Amino acid sequence: MITRRKMMGGAVAAGLMASPLAAAVRFDRRKRGFDITLAGGGVVPVFVDADDFPGVRRAASDLAADIGRVTGTAAQVVGDRARLPARIILVGSIGHSPLIDRLIASGKLDVAGIRGKWESFVVETIANPLPGVTEALVIVGSDKRGAIYGAYDLSRMIGVSPWYWWADVPVVRQTHLSVANGRYVQGSPAVKYRGIFLNDEAPCLSGWTTEKFGGMNAQFYGKLFELLLRLRANYLWPAMWNNAFAIDDPANAPLAEEFGIVMGTSHHEPMMRAHKEWTDNRKDYGNGAWNYATNGPAVAKFFREGIVRNHDNEVIVTIGMRGDGDVALESTGGIQSDVKLLEGIITDQRRIIASGMGKPAEQVPQVWVLFTEVYKYYDAGLKIPDDVTLMLADDNVGNLRRLPTPAERSRKGGFGVYFHMDMHGGPFAYQWVNSNPLPKIWEQMNLANQYGANEMWIANVGDLKPLELPIEFFLAMAWNPADVAKDKIADWTRAWAERQFGPEHATEIAFLAARYAKYNGMRKPEQLKPTTFSLEHYHEAERMCEAWTDLVRRADAVNAALRPDQRDAFYQLVLYPVRACANLMLMYAAAARNARFAEQTRASTKAEADEVRRRFKYDHELRDTYNHVLAGGKWNHMMDQTHIGYFDWYPPESDIMPAVADLDLDGATGFGVSVDGSARAWPGYYLPPTLPTLDSITRLPTYLDVFPRGLAEAPVTVTVDQPWVKIREGKAFSASSRDKRFWIDVDWAKAPVGKAKATITVKGDTTITVRLDAVRATPQQEKDARDAFGGLAGGFAVPVAEFTRSIPVGNVRWDTIPDFGRVETAMSIFPVDAPSFPDPTRAPRLEYPIFLAAAGKYRVDLVTGPTLEVIPGRKLRVAVWLDGQQPEIGTVFTPEDGPSQDFLGAKHAVNTADNARTMRFTIDADRPGRHVLTVAMIDPTMVVQAIAIANDDPKASYFGPPILDTRPAKLGRPVSPWAIVRS
Amino acid sequence: MITRRKMMGGAVAAGLMASPLAAAVRFDRRKRGFDITLAGGGVVPVFVDADDFPGVRRAASDLAADIGRVTGTAAQVVGDRARLPARIILVGSIGHSPLIDRLIASGKLDVAGIRGKWESFVVETIANPLPGVTEALVIVGSDKRGAIYGAYDLSRMIGVSPWYWWADVPVVRQTHLSVANGRYVQGSPAVKYRGIFLNDEAPCLSGWTTEKFGGMNAQFYGKLFELLLRLRANYLWPAMWNNAFAIDDPANAPLAEEFGIVMGTSHHEPMMRAHKEWTDNRKDYGNGAWNYATNGPAVAKFFREGIVRNHDNEVIVTIGMRGDGDVALESTGGIQSDVKLLEGIITDQRRIIASGMGKPAEQVPQVWVLFTEVYKYYDAGLKIPDDVTLMLADDNVGNLRRLPTPAERSRKGGFGVYFHMDMHGGPFAYQWVNSNPLPKIWEQMNLANQYGANEMWIANVGDLKPLELPIEFFLAMAWNPADVAKDKIADWTRAWAERQFGPEHATEIAFLAARYAKYNGMRKPEQLKPTTFSLEHYHEAERMCEAWTDLVRRADAVNAALRPDQRDAFYQLVLYPVRACANLMLMYAAAARNARFAEQTRASTKAEADEVRRRFKYDHELRDTYNHVLAGGKWNHMMDQTHIGYFDWYPPESDIMPAVADLDLDGATGFGVSVDGSARAWPGYYLPPTLPTLDSITRLPTYLDVFPRGLAEAPVTVTVDQPWVKIREGKAFSASSRDKRFWIDVDWAKAPVGKAKATITVKGDTTITVRLDAVRATPQQEKDARDAFGGLAGGFAVPVAEFTRSIPVGNVRWDTIPDFGRVETAMSIFPVDAPSFPDPTRAPRLEYPIFLAAAGKYRVDLVTGPTLEVIPGRKLRVAVWLDGQQPEIGTVFTPEDGPSQDFLGAKHAVNTADNARTMRFTIDADRPGRHVLTVAMIDPTMVVQAIAIANDDPKASYFGPPILDTRPAKLGRPVSPWAIVRS
Repeated sequence: MITRRKMMGGAVAAGLMASPLAAAVRFDRRKRGFDITLAGGGVVPVFVDADDFPGVRRAASDLAADIGRVTGTAAQVVGDRARLPARIILVGSIGHSPLIDRLIASGKLDVAGIRGKWESFVVETIANPLPGVTEALVIVGSDKRGAIYGAYDLSRMIGVSPWYWWADVPVVRQTHLSVANGRYVQGSPAVKYRGIFLNDEAPCLSGWTTEKFGGMNAQFYGKLFELLLRLRANYLWPAMWNNAFAIDDPANAPLAEEFGIVMGTSHHEPMMRAHKEWTDNRKDYGNGAWNYATNGPAVAKFFREGIVRNHDNEVIVTIGMRGDGDVALESTGGIQSDVKLLEGIITDQRRIIASGMGKPAEQVPQVWVLFTEVYKYYDAGLKIPDDVTLMLADDNVGNLRRLPTPAERSRKGGFGVYFHMDMHGGPFAYQWVNSNPLPKIWEQMNLANQYGANEMWIANVGDLKPLELPIEFFLAMAWNPADVAKDKIADWTRAWAERQFGPEHATEIAFLAARYAKYNGMRKPEQLKPTTFSLEHYHEAERMCEAWTDLVRRADAVNAALRPDQRDAFYQLVLYPVRACANLMLMYAAAARNARFAEQTRASTKAEADEVRRRFKYDHELRDTYNHVLAGGKWNHMMDQTHIGYFDWYPPESDIMPAVADLDLDGATGFGVSVDGSARAWPGYYLPPTLPTLDSITRLPTYLDVFPRGLAEAPVTVTVDQPWVKIREGKAFSASSRDKRFWIDVDWAKAPVGKAKATITVKGDTTITVRLDAVRATPQQEKDARDAFGGLAGGFAVPVAEFTRSIPVGNVRWDTIPDFGRVETAMSIFPVDAPSFPDPTRAPRLEYPIFLAAAGKYRVDLVTGPTLEVIPGRKLRVAVWLDGQQPEIGTVFTPEDGPSQDFLGAKHAVNTADNARTMRFTIDADRPGRHVLTVAMIDPTMVVQAIAIANDDPKASYFGPPILDTRPAKLGRPVSPWAIVRS
Repeated sequence: MITRRKMMGGAVAAGLMASPLAAAVRFDRRKRGFDITLAGGGVVPVFVDADDFPGVRRAASDLAADIGRVTGTAAQVVGDRARLPARIILVGSIGHSPLIDRLIASGKLDVAGIRGKWESFVVETIANPLPGVTEALVIVGSDKRGAIYGAYDLSRMIGVSPWYWWADVPVVRQTHLSVANGRYVQGSPAVKYRGIFLNDEAPCLSGWTTEKFGGMNAQFYGKLFELLLRLRANYLWPAMWNNAFAIDDPANAPLAEEFGIVMGTSHHEPMMRAHKEWTDNRKDYGNGAWNYATNGPAVAKFFREGIVRNHDNEVIVTIGMRGDGDVALESTGGIQSDVKLLEGIITDQRRIIASGMGKPAEQVPQVWVLFTEVYKYYDAGLKIPDDVTLMLADDNVGNLRRLPTPAERSRKGGFGVYFHMDMHGGPFAYQWVNSNPLPKIWEQMNLANQYGANEMWIANVGDLKPLELPIEFFLAMAWNPADVAKDKIADWTRAWAERQFGPEHATEIAFLAARYAKYNGMRKPEQLKPTTFSLEHYHEAERMCEAWTDLVRRADAVNAALRPDQRDAFYQLVLYPVRACANLMLMYAAAARNARFAEQTRASTKAEADEVRRRFKYDHELRDTYNHVLAGGKWNHMMDQTHIGYFDWYPPESDIMPAVADLDLDGATGFGVSVDGSARAWPGYYLPPTLPTLDSITRLPTYLDVFPRGLAEAPVTVTVDQPWVKIREGKAFSASSRDKRFWIDVDWAKAPVGKAKATITVKGDTTITVRLDAVRATPQQEKDARDAFGGLAGGFAVPVAEFTRSIPVGNVRWDTIPDFGRVETAMSIFPVDAPSFPDPTRAPRLEYPIFLAAAGKYRVDLVTGPTLEVIPGRKLRVAVWLDGQQPEIGTVFTPEDGPSQDFLGAKHAVNTADNARTMRFTIDADRPGRHVLTVAMIDPTMVVQAIAIANDDPKASYFGPPILDTRPAKLGRPVSPWAIVRS
């Protein structure tokens, strides 16, 4: 087991972040405790000492205002120690509030649990604490931010969301407000520095700040600092796209210090300076080259100025150096000379830090960010001082690239993580709405935490606004990972929803917020193409459309049921992304059908083109509502991000309507037929139409579509030559109601056992005959297949959580990650830092019952998470085998495969777009019937999402064969993209 | 040298086929000779004996009618030997016309030159040939078809085109008609059986025959037989898509015999039966399986019926057997047992032929067609009787797959070729207009002829109609290859045009007919996509559009200048394909721009979508004119073939308009800039705009486009910071006149020597600065580059015919093929059956002077023809090297590469779509300056079209760097797709 920071705080919590006050705040007059509301109206005043930190005073003042938001009467803020009211809320930090110190000295306040600790606090109700004071609610911080977090914790618990301003979350008015008598202790956070990075901040955040504040000035940053502190964050990398924090508004940096925010600069901007400061003024610096080798003294001067002006500020200094702008360092010619140059730069930087700050460099927090190419210098042996934090960057798409080895973990500066929820760069940009499902964030950040990369966590959050939920989750996890452990994520999300919208719709809202992000996580909206999901296999595109349509229906229902004052918040947090993402999927599906229908000579080709046009227009209507109608236009520009029609890694300059084809229907007549499983149509295609084989075990139905080819009606009759085939007319997956679908199913009781053939005849002005094969299981096959996965024809999926046996080895075991990736439940190895098990037959493993209709070879696709080689040089391995056969070991990151699988490699681009990696195995069944498929761990950090088994060329589709939801209880449930509900 | 049939006939000829009468027919009253027109009006009668072959009598009768078409008075046809007029045109065949035989016997007619020869004839003017006859024009055939061809030869020479009915070619009325006194001898054809195959005959030919004749009956076939004989063809494979020649109209087969057409059946229909006869009646034959292994006796019965009913007909029996329909034979399990089965089938077939025909099988012409998979049985050792002709099929796209080896050439039955000018099958279908440039047909059929595959030539001509020119060329070449030798093709085409349209516009019409086919040969219309030609490099798409537009302009001008009665013929032979193919190219270019402009956020995106819609509509208008207006609707359905929107190898069921994208211009403003060489636009793209480097040697200009992004005007000023840069405003390659192009050129006299930089500033509501690099040659560079190919920047092309030295070895040499492929002149090895030269330094070779601006490695792409491995087991090799360096040998058809390069392999698909194969070499220049590039033969049958040299990643384009047409004489010439005319 690796050594890791002791988790602190974290009583069982269903709050956004666990709050020790979670159960203490009461709105019921009949419950006894410290009453904040007074019987005769009015509220208890808040005392904060004039000598306390300005940030603490500001938080106390915000608490007083928040009490007003809840009760209608703002609390008075008082600071005169000589004139204390009889009942007070006392806010302060140890050592900076004489009253607090007096209470401690007098033994009335016990701070033993927090004294000297980082950012912790105690809230306690004390009777007769001070002369003349009969009752006090004391909020005491171990330090500045401890007190601030304590004050904001009470705010949150009385019902003021951190997002009250940033997402227009309404505050529920209460007539009574009290805190149950008692002592409430909040320990230190798991991660010392927790923050965000405003990056890729145009066009949304930039446009919005320009309109609303006149730029990224102190007015704007004040709003942001307050949000961060309410979310218990402490660290910020400011916006840097043509922005310079310290220069754009000279009040910015002092304001951060006043609030108590630790400022840094981004991964590529060393020494507390924005790169824009260099580009705007490079002529003042030597030869103007951002090159330490050729312009060292001038660059050093630029560095020194950045440090000196932050002499009085709490900062974390980014050190090292990259190229001119957010690009790689200009090489001196070889890796070793580059390493030498960088070591020299860092030595100089530390000298400058020490002299500029007036204290030893070891006493100033510093970070060196291993971003993109920077890893190579570290791998090449670059020596970095032990007190500097090494911040490990992910792959820009939320997959960690590196974790500390046991040997590295002892370093004093520790490790941090730079994580992306938004990216403008390779492998592809995603800058629109949230596409970061929380279980995915948890899975990767849990690795970071368990492997000891928990000194600093920073998330790139783009324009901030559409990422409210994952930002809060990330910060909650940084504070206390145990609060959001994998099995608690749904509860946490529900509690989050309850904080914003009250209990009545919280479950549904949490579902919606999680689900739209999950669908976006299956493939980011920016990576969607008309061809992403299969039109012809497994109803795949149709199931995606149904899933999104269902989400819209549910979101609309919640919206209608909410109070009017809640709808602005609901629109921005849930309704807009649900509607807009659903619309996007439906638009791409219409574009796909338009192209396909043109090939099939369907008259409805034009209807699909119109549908694409309509949905393209609707996308902009939704955007305009966000920008201009929502909260009276408060968020104008926040939804300016283009998101339709990507043709390269970066977003298009303007949304591009998917191209649509057209047919010339002049003179066209008659009807056409298309069938499940084929892109072709008849009359026309030269091979005869054949439906997928139906079988009595999977019992899936199939279909054929009949459609007019001209403007005139083309009536047909559909008949079948076998009594055991059932035909039911339905609606085709089409924008036109003129396209009919005929569902074909088998009455298995009547069908002959074994293989049987039927012919379906579609008769109109011409006649098309469609072949159907059906296989009914023998009694022995039925017995063998019972409760096993598989069928008599075609590929099938095995739901990974539905194993019959899980064999642990010691404490190492496969365990579930609910709601991960494409599926309802994924499986991974716990603990995540378990050792490897080179012999799979003696490794932790899972056994699945499968039914194979025939002997022979089958291919097994293990769909895993796209995790990277986080332990340098270690491969990612897993083994699969059938019955007692020889295990086949699948290996990623072999010397041959590694460069392609790794960051920015060809397979990495595919894996990250798919948010999955497929590993292919072969099994060879010596006989038909029931078998056991075993999946065994070799290395940890492998997540298995799905297993697909096929005995022939599998049908091309995005997800592969769907899981068949055959349980009666699931029938009638909304269709999931990963499951087909049997009709 | 290989032995080959002696070429006969073929005096220098500028006729469609060389005619011995070419210079003999006169329309000038003052020239003396045998006058066909009588002084007092009327014409000389045509005598044909009642005992002569019906086909001869029919041809004589057609000649009489043709005289009427020319003079206004049809000649009388007389047959009464007892009442001969004083002057006669006497038509007959030796041994079947008593008058002819009498003339021979009397010594007045000398047939020594043709007697006993195949299909030859003599035309002679004889004074006082017979009692009471003062003057005769005798047309005497060595055999039936000799006489027929003689009669039709006179028809052609007096001005009745073989296409007078089939292409509505008007006959020019003459008041005087005479034949210069003399003896005119036509020898035998080079290829014994010359014919066509009506295949892939739906929807056009089928629809047309149904409407005009009620099916493919004798009425239709009579028209066809006449055409074939007028073209000196003798062999036909009849239509077989749901057609059965002998059954559809019982009069068909007797009519063929009567005309003198040798009937066969297609490559996959053995024993004179249509496959439809089997599919319609299979229940009457044993178990109904088209399988000799399981249903042999019944299949043999089917075979026997086919032979017996042709007992009295001149036929060529296709033998062997393929699968059920035009597919491969169903295997018996292994190649050796399949060979055994096929040998048994052929043995049985020959027994049936002998008994059915009542003569030894060796006396009945038979053919075994090596089509697609059939080669493998032959290669596996299948024994085929020596008298059977082996017909070698091409790769469906006009590239021969196999030629006889010296050892094989001795076989008695010889070899034939099955050639495609139209295909419905792999690698892709092409069934619309002519895409077979004559030089390409020549190049491949010359191989066939020189390698002795000249017993039978048959061309798959689809629906026949849009392929008039290549059909006639193919048959002319089959008659006498010398008539159409590579350097005579242009003259032949001009003469063909003159026969159809008279001398005035013949040169221009020949150019148009050749040129549209050449462009279609560069890439078949069916294989065009919006992305085929580069929008951003070398103005490639634009040059193709200009080339096509120029062709339309010229065709329109000819059309306006022609007589009204010539316009129907001109429309179908030239104007329709020129307009429709040009429109197709322009439509795809608009679709390409639509997609690109959307990415560039150009307001003109919509204009391009409109342009696509307009051109899609225009395509159907042109089609409708062909079908409904042309010749009063005579050719309705002949242009029914879909040809837009291929998505698989076969044609779409309906034309599909290319998909077009759209932008939302609501609120869009300002302007954008795009630059030559880039697909991107600014503002927007993250890297700065940079133009291709200009250099003083190639002297090409470059450009930038400026376009509005919204509906409002967005005026800009374009300025440059260097006095040596010239800017000229022009028209952008855009459907919108709002898009401006600014041409950027350098005043080299003013530019500094060496590298220089300039910045072009586009200023409007924002400012975009575009970088330009220019390189001016030093005096030494100028000297080195003089008359060499190359430049100071970027890749360049070497025109292969512009070598400075061609070094032959003995009689083996590189020689030109004019107008071949993508270029004006290609180079190949002659004689084509030369031996290989394993040592390239001692092989025939070409030397080119090239100028390389820098030392280092360059890649050399040799663009060759897509020729296949026609000699089994021989590779295709060529060598390239620089100066005195080590030659690099390029090899196609290595064991590794062969399967992909061969028929239906992956590279074969690319090569045939490109109609080119690119072979890549590397050269390493040890110094900058002038060098010699050598290209040396190793194997014959290699055609080199172009050489492209690049020192970095070449720019992606279809053709590669264009040839720079720098000769002053070429300036102002129409722009060719393969050349950029320097402005």
